[in-house]
Amino acid sequence: MTERNAPIGVFDSGVGGLTVAREIIRQMPNEHIVYFGDTARLPYGSKSQDTIIRYSRQIIRFLMTKEVKAIVIACNTASAYALDTVAGEFSLPIIGVINAGAYSAVHATRNGKIGVIGTEGTIGSGIYTEVMKRMRPDIEVTGKSCPLFVPLVEEGLLHDSVTDEIASRYLSALKSRFIDTLVLGCTHYPLLRSTLGRLMGSDVTLVNPAYETAIELKALLEERQLTCISGQGGQEKYQFFVSDLAEKFTAFATSILPMEAKGTRKINIEEY
Amino acid sequence: MTERNAPIGVFDSGVGGLTVAREIIRQMPNEHIVYFGDTARLPYGSKSQDTIIRYSRQIIRFLMTKEVKAIVIACNTASAYALDTVAGEFSLPIIGVINAGAYSAVHATRNGKIGVIGTEGTIGSGIYTEVMKRMRPDIEVTGKSCPLFVPLVEEGLLHDSVTDEIASRYLSALKSRFIDTLVLGCTHYPLLRSTLGRLMGSDVTLVNPAYETAIELKALLEERQLTCISGQGGQEKYQFFVSDLAEKFTAFATSILPMEAKGTRKINIEEY
Repeated sequence: MTERNAPIGVFDSGVGGLTVAREIIRQMPNEHIVYFGDTARLPYGSKSQDTIIRYSRQIIRFLMTKEVKAIVIACNTASAYALDTVAGEFSLPIIGVINAGAYSAVHATRNGKIGVIGTEGTIGSGIYTEVMKRMRPDIEVTGKSCPLFVPLVEEGLLHDSVTDEIASRYLSALKSRFIDTLVLGCTHYPLLRSTLGRLMGSDVTLVNPAYETAIELKALLEERQLTCISGQGGQEKYQFFVSDLAEKFTAFATSILPMEAKGTRKINIEEY
Repeated sequence: MTERNAPIGVFDSGVGGLTVAREIIRQMPNEHIVYFGDTARLPYGSKSQDTIIRYSRQIIRFLMTKEVKAIVIACNTASAYALDTVAGEFSLPIIGVINAGAYSAVHATRNGKIGVIGTEGTIGSGIYTEVMKRMRPDIEVTGKSCPLFVPLVEEGLLHDSVTDEIASRYLSALKSRFIDTLVLGCTHYPLLRSTLGRLMGSDVTLVNPAYETAIELKALLEERQLTCISGQGGQEKYQFFVSDLAEKFTAFATSILPMEAKGTRKINIEEY
C-alpha cells in the first residue's frame, strides 16, 4: 500500500520544471517533493523520442528509489514523447503537463484559434493539437517551435532586443492566424512571459500549463486518498537531485522557488 | 602490435568535429576514419569536467571496439577537460585540438595579443591561456565564452542580423584589447567565420585549430609508423556513429564533408 505521506516525484531536463514544482508548493503546501533535473543530458527538445523515453525510464526508476507516491513529468518534451509509453510500465500514477495545458487553452479561447509554442520535439509530435481536438474537435491549433528561447533564457536575456527580435519572428506566423490564446508549451517560456505578452498584445491569453498541472495532481491525490497529512512526512521537505552541476542548479532554483533550495545532490542517472 | 591500416577514431559532442574530420580527410586521403558524435547528450560546453571525462571515457571505449589506431578528440571542451586525464588511461595515442590551436595562434600573432572564443567549459578551464603561455610566456591572452553561438549555428543563422548583434557583444571585449589573432576555440565557430572576420576586421588573423590538428596527427602517425598504406584497410572508409538522430546527422555531415556521409548508425553510448 502506498504511503500517503510519501513525496511527489517531479522531473525535467533541467531547471524549467521548477516552475511546475513552484505551483505544486503553492497549491499543496503540505506535500513533500523530490525533484530531479537531468542537467548532464539537457536539452531534451532537440532529441529523439527513443532517447527521451529511455531517459524518462531511468529517471522514474531513480525517483522510485525515493519511494515517491506519484510522478509529474514537468517537461513538455518528455510529456509529449514518453508519458503514454511509461505510464503503463510503472505501478504508480504518472502525469505530464500537456493535458493540463490543453485543457486550460480550450477553456480560455473565445474564437477557437489557439497557438502553441514549444521545442522541436513537442511541436513536431503534434500532441497538443491531438489532445485539444479530442477535447473540442472544431478548434484550430497552430504550433510553432522556438529552439532559441531556451538558450536565450539560460543566457539571462529575458528583457533584451535580441530576444524581442527572435520572438517577433517566431510569433509572426501565430499572429497572422489571429489566435486569441497562446500555450507556453515549454517550462522555460513562462520566464519570457512579459516579452511574449507584449508582442502578442493584451487580447491574447497566455496559458502556463504549470498551474493547471498542479490542480490535476491535487485532484488525483485526493481521489486516491494520497494527500499528505499536515506535519507528517520525512525530515527534508524538498529534495533536489541533478545529473550535473549541482551548485549552478541550486542558484537558479533559489531564484525561482519561494525558499532556498538547499543541498542539491548530483547522481549518475545512467546507472538507473 | 597496432595495425597501421586500422582507422583513426574522431569524436565530438555532435557535428562540430566534422570540421576536423574534413581536414584529416584532406591532408591524409588514405586514412580510414570512425567518427562518433554524442548527439544524445550534447552540448558539452555547459557541463562539468567530471561529466565530460565520464562521457569521453565511454566514447574512447566504444571507439576501441572499432580497433582504432589513434583517437582525435575533435571537441574543444572535451580536449580542455578530459584529454590530460584520459590520455594516460588508454594504450593508444590520443590527441586533442587545443595544442594545435594554441600553436597556430602563438606563431600567427605579431603584437603578442591573442583572443580565444569558446564554450563556457573551454574558456572557464583557462587551458588555452595556460598552453600558450607555456609556449611563449610574454603572450597576452583574453578569453571570452560565447554560449549562444552553437544554438545560432544549429538554427542555421550563419548570416543574420541577430547573429551579428550577439557576435558584436561577445567580441567587443576582445576588440578593446587590440588582439591581432583570434582562436576559434569551438568546432562550430568556423561556420561563423565570415561574420567573425568582418566584425574583427582584416587585421585580425582567425585561427581554426582543425587544420593544425590534422598536421599534428599526421606527424604522430608518421613517427610511430602508423600511416595507412594506400589502398589497404577495410571496406568502409568512413564510418559514422551517433548516440541519437542518425538521419539529421547524415544530412549535416553531407553538407560539411567532401562526400556523402552514408549509413550513420545510432548506438547506446551509455553501455560502454
